[in-house]
Amino acid sequence: MTRRFTTEVTVQWGDVDLAGVVYFPHFFRYVDIAEAEFYHSLGPTVLELEESLGIRLPRVEATCRFLKPARFCDRLSVTLEIGRLSTKTVRYLFDVRRGDEAIAEGHLVIASVSIADFKAIPLPQKLRELLQPYAPPDGGA
Amino acid sequence: MTRRFTTEVTVQWGDVDLAGVVYFPHFFRYVDIAEAEFYHSLGPTVLELEESLGIRLPRVEATCRFLKPARFCDRLSVTLEIGRLSTKTVRYLFDVRRGDEAIAEGHLVIASVSIADFKAIPLPQKLRELLQPYAPPDGGA
Amino acid sequence: MTRRFTTEVTVQWGDVDLAGVVYFPHFFRYVDIAEAEFYHSLGPTVLELEESLGIRLPRVEATCRFLKPARFCDRLSVTLEIGRLSTKTVRYLFDVRRGDEAIAEGHLVIASVSIADFKAIPLPQKLRELLQPYAPPDGGA
Amino acid sequence: MTRRFTTEVTVQWGDVDLAGVVYFPHFFRYVDIAEAEFYHSLGPTVLELEESLGIRLPRVEATCRFLKPARFCDRLSVTLEIGRLSTKTVRYLFDVRRGDEAIAEGHLVIASVSIADFKAIPLPQKLRELLQPYAPPDGGA
Repeated sequence: MTRRFTTEVTVQWGDVDLAGVVYFPHFFRYVDIAEAEFYHSLGPTVLELEESLGIRLPRVEATCRFLKPARFCDRLSVTLEIGRLSTKTVRYLFDVRRGDEAIAEGHLVIASVSIADFKAIPLPQKLRELLQPYAPPDGGA
Repeated sequence: MTRRFTTEVTVQWGDVDLAGVVYFPHFFRYVDIAEAEFYHSLGPTVLELEESLGIRLPRVEATCRFLKPARFCDRLSVTLEIGRLSTKTVRYLFDVRRGDEAIAEGHLVIASVSIADFKAIPLPQKLRELLQPYAPPDGGA
Repeated sequence: MTRRFTTEVTVQWGDVDLAGVVYFPHFFRYVDIAEAEFYHSLGPTVLELEESLGIRLPRVEATCRFLKPARFCDRLSVTLEIGRLSTKTVRYLFDVRRGDEAIAEGHLVIASVSIADFKAIPLPQKLRELLQPYAPPDGGA
Repeated sequence: MTRRFTTEVTVQWGDVDLAGVVYFPHFFRYVDIAEAEFYHSLGPTVLELEESLGIRLPRVEATCRFLKPARFCDRLSVTLEIGRLSTKTVRYLFDVRRGDEAIAEGHLVIASVSIADFKAIPLPQKLRELLQPYAPPDGGA
């Protein structure tokens, strides 16, 4: 069983800067699109999940290495993998490819906070169960 | 007494497309920046206003004519004026200038909806009173 | 033969504002996605077209009426139709739907400018021929 | 002499997501605003610099830790500092503060590529001289 999730995005006109390449913060949007589709593939949307559990899932860390420029109309594959699932955070590893070429790679760390006051709380059990099948066997410790 | 409100914005790298000019939807963001500062100049932020009145103020119409391109690092003046203040909507006229040159001009129509269900409701009296000094004497009818 | 072109977009997390609905300038991005795919369906990308013809195709007018809010994960259909094809401009009519519901509608007017100096020039013959099959029989005059 | 450069940004309506906090990729735009103003404070705009030197200055790495949420209308200070200036890259360290509170912090690594083909080239001497007064005495090695 693969523990990776891949989605496709197409570079839009508004994503490209005057150097003719994707303006770098948009890569983080592309990863968010993949993450939203990943949750949706498990059942609920991430918003339904948040609201049913009384949480938000903000990013506490984001990093990306930009290996090659991406251009208007490029068809990119964004792949997510859970690098670590702990009691408090999920670490996603991602890469962005154009066919065989590596375009970007990095990670996101997501925490769980109360919807009411944005105070950190442990990841709800239901969320951990949903993500468990995609996590490394030992949680990635 | 002037009934116009002006603010300044600087064109950012991420606002410019591969043609080297501001990507047109960003002009609507510039107008929103002016509108947010306009409300703030009257006292509350637009968010405080919405939340204290139990409303949201979505746009129901937006139009813009783009007269000249704007470029990276351009310093633009965005001017707002209330064209019409009725019981249900506010119509803002706006223009964007770079020094003496007209860059863009248009209007926004804003309605009032209940925060709970996004159903249209009349503009709250408090909001009308706040905007009244900026409205044409006859409401713009 | 239908003269309409439709594409689908999904509302992303980053498109939604704190009122929980699509922030209105993003609707213009959605229309741009449809326009880019429309050109691509005819052969070249809009960028290849621009660069082979030595032109840019800036918007000179954009208008939209927002009929209902769209929300995170909504699947929207964006439909384009050429309302008028003249010697100098193309007028696209668009609407955005969620299933049977009308969400937004408006138009864009696109002109042709020289890539070198952004001065207005007539639409190149090759572009007019490409668009002709989608234009009203009388050009929409 | 301080080697730090600070600018102020205000959180706009369109920067905030449905959780009511700044959508994280926008922090990278805030850092770009600071970087553009930093170059401009040295004389040329970054675009003039790029075009006079025949280069682009893409990011090859970006990282950010998000410490506290930022909200609509927050006034944020973005501070840049050169952590390392080598023959091929500039490493900027940044932090984002709201008054005394640390909101976010991270770094960007910027490389120099030929404007013609996006191939990596050493940082032009003129750019290194411009940045030198802000670099650590030993280049940050």
